[in-house]
Amino acid sequence: MEPAEMIIPRTGIGLDVHAYAPEDQPCPLWLGGLLWPGERGLAGHSDGDPVAHAAADALFSAAGLGDLGTHFGTDRPEFAGAAGTTLLAEAARIVRAAGFEIGNIAVQFVANRPKFGPRREESQQVLSDAADAPVSVTATTSDHLGFTGRGEGISAVATALVYPRPHLPIS
Amino acid sequence: MEPAEMIIPRTGIGLDVHAYAPEDQPCPLWLGGLLWPGERGLAGHSDGDPVAHAAADALFSAAGLGDLGTHFGTDRPEFAGAAGTTLLAEAARIVRAAGFEIGNIAVQFVANRPKFGPRREESQQVLSDAADAPVSVTATTSDHLGFTGRGEGISAVATALVYPRPHLPIS
Amino acid sequence: MEPAEMIIPRTGIGLDVHAYAPEDQPCPLWLGGLLWPGERGLAGHSDGDPVAHAAADALFSAAGLGDLGTHFGTDRPEFAGAAGTTLLAEAARIVRAAGFEIGNIAVQFVANRPKFGPRREESQQVLSDAADAPVSVTATTSDHLGFTGRGEGISAVATALVYPRPHLPIS
Ligand SMILES: [Zn+2]
Ligand SMILES: [Zn+2]
Ligand SMILES: [Zn+2]
Repeated sequence: MEPAEMIIPRTGIGLDVHAYAPEDQPCPLWLGGLLWPGERGLAGHSDGDPVAHAAADALFSAAGLGDLGTHFGTDRPEFAGAAGTTLLAEAARIVRAAGFEIGNIAVQFVANRPKFGPRREESQQVLSDAADAPVSVTATTSDHLGFTGRGEGISAVATALVYPRPHLPIS
Repeated sequence: MEPAEMIIPRTGIGLDVHAYAPEDQPCPLWLGGLLWPGERGLAGHSDGDPVAHAAADALFSAAGLGDLGTHFGTDRPEFAGAAGTTLLAEAARIVRAAGFEIGNIAVQFVANRPKFGPRREESQQVLSDAADAPVSVTATTSDHLGFTGRGEGISAVATALVYPRPHLPIS
Repeated sequence: MEPAEMIIPRTGIGLDVHAYAPEDQPCPLWLGGLLWPGERGLAGHSDGDPVAHAAADALFSAAGLGDLGTHFGTDRPEFAGAAGTTLLAEAARIVRAAGFEIGNIAVQFVANRPKFGPRREESQQVLSDAADAPVSVTATTSDHLGFTGRGEGISAVATALVYPRPHLPIS
């Protein structure tokens, strides 16, 4: 067996936090690639979806290609107000263009609400479609502690696994 | 070499936070699968062990099988008050039943106390036995910042690696 | 194909937090292995670099070899005041001595400042040289929430992937 056959994956990490929009400037909540009618929205550039953003950041982190600011910063006005799924799809495209395959992405967000279970499958499908790779999304609370516990915002943490695209033998 | 030989693992992430029990409702501290006599306990469903819970959530996350709420929620009264090691063992069973092997689980908790070093090996052994896979547990502080720094609770973050069970050739 | 050819990597996680030094005891800022002239410094043992420390802790976590306290605690006075890159290099040495290869390390820090993008490549190079393995470093904010949002300190979270060193056949 030649060592060249061994494919070593790379791991990455991504965090994202968004504060709730001020009461006098309400906006819709986008979370996990989904619109949540009736829920208080998160402020922020683009749609403020911490789940989609953490997923994209974890991809960049795994591939060693910088972060959201590197690729979608203020010098890229075409991404202002972009959907989280758009950013995740573009991140996946950039990572693949650099020679990586995407194994999977896993995200967990911390929030008192909304109740996520009934829409988990829908969220995972939307994000997996965007990344064209498996994305798992889970939810938890911080037991009333910290800024997520006080309902000031939502945080998300993601990990991603990518691996260098194997060079297929010429047949 | 056929691509089918390549086994791509999946990564997962899990967070858990528990607040300390109120002074007038003291309870024992369970942390890292161990009982800590003389330490102030954490509130919560089951035994409130954030290390065991984060480990279980990371397993579910890696396998794309939901989270603690999905499997051990209020509609599963048989898990009310369950030990963290029981939940971790059950999570490992569910993940394996879905066709995955468990590579390893790594957890770090953030707390001012207890002093963990002298019991690390014991904790790792108890949790590894529960998961029937290697579980590493580490500890740190948040340098007196945030809710962990103020001694309001303990948080834990875990990552897990699982991989689809290889189909062995018939010999 | 023999199962023995299959190399299963291990994942690890590391968190680190340092508070800013008091105004009346200013010190230089070390972050991501770099000195940041003109920026307020972080307090702490060694150089207080949460990026380098989280990276080292993630390595130990992946290999199941304890944590920073285990290896560089107060019983090892030779590491008092050590640079983060020194600790990371020593962590990598310890992990390799235990029979592991290092796949990669990914770190994200949470801070309002300094502006990291212009020095990302430099930081990644310094840390990758220290670990003798790829280290990616990314940055984000917590949208003015929590202790990082209030500018009380900087937190970092890292993940690392290691794998048992393959036994090469005798040729
Ligand atoms: Zn964001
Ligand atoms: Zn819990
Ligand atoms: Zn530190």
